[in-house]
Amino acid sequence: MTPRRFQELSREESLRRLGSVRVGRIVFSHQALPAIRPVNHLVDDGQVIIRSHAGAALMSALDTVVAYEADFVAEGDRIGWSVIVTGVARRLKVPEAIARYERLLQPWVPDEMAHVIRIQPELVTGFSLEECEQGEPGAA
Amino acid sequence: MTPRRFQELSREESLRRLGSVRVGRIVFSHQALPAIRPVNHLVDDGQVIIRSHAGAALMSALDTVVAYEADFVAEGDRIGWSVIVTGVARRLKVPEAIARYERLLQPWVPDEMAHVIRIQPELVTGFSLEECEQGEPGAA
Repeated sequence: MTPRRFQELSREESLRRLGSVRVGRIVFSHQALPAIRPVNHLVDDGQVIIRSHAGAALMSALDTVVAYEADFVAEGDRIGWSVIVTGVARRLKVPEAIARYERLLQPWVPDEMAHVIRIQPELVTGFSLEECEQGEPGAA
Repeated sequence: MTPRRFQELSREESLRRLGSVRVGRIVFSHQALPAIRPVNHLVDDGQVIIRSHAGAALMSALDTVVAYEADFVAEGDRIGWSVIVTGVARRLKVPEAIARYERLLQPWVPDEMAHVIRIQPELVTGFSLEECEQGEPGAA
């Protein structure tokens, strides 16, 4: 099998890849337990935007530090990438911004999405796994 | 567009779907922050098995409650499913079991994987989004 190379991605490249897919997962604490929910997102001006309905568990994540992850895995799990953003989740309050994101961001799960949430990335990490020539540095 | 139906999955069906894919994400606390790592898994006898290397952040998740998520999203994010398992992560110690899983479970990220971890599902939730006929109950 072709060897693969594990590569760390820059912050800029990580955010670019995150913005290239539409579904990711928000990770937070809920009732003192680790929780995760798949949602649609968009990356706008370096920030991650998601929507939530009012009764959702993830409303308990507001004003706390959350992680947001997206990945892409292909060719029998041989290659792909993953990006993880960590930062505080805040509910947007400016009506014009809310209206704009409501137009741009269609929720994956059909539900009444009352809130728009912005995650301000403090920490951005990413890696990719790519095929490479045998003998190349980093080949595994 | 064809309407979609949101459907909760039974525990049995959730574990079946989890076992039908190879990559998921373990969710845990690391240094008091929410953390997530994509890994390969298998479902064996109703338990989720993953591998980890000794220096990984997720070693701090051992003997704590973690969440494990896998999903499948298709057709422009219109349909798919997601399964979330919550339970305690334990390191396997029986050499025969470790050797067996090391044969069965090839890590996604090429690295020396010293440990085999089992998540015993306490809570299993899942949902699916499927297309359905207009007027069917639950169509959205």
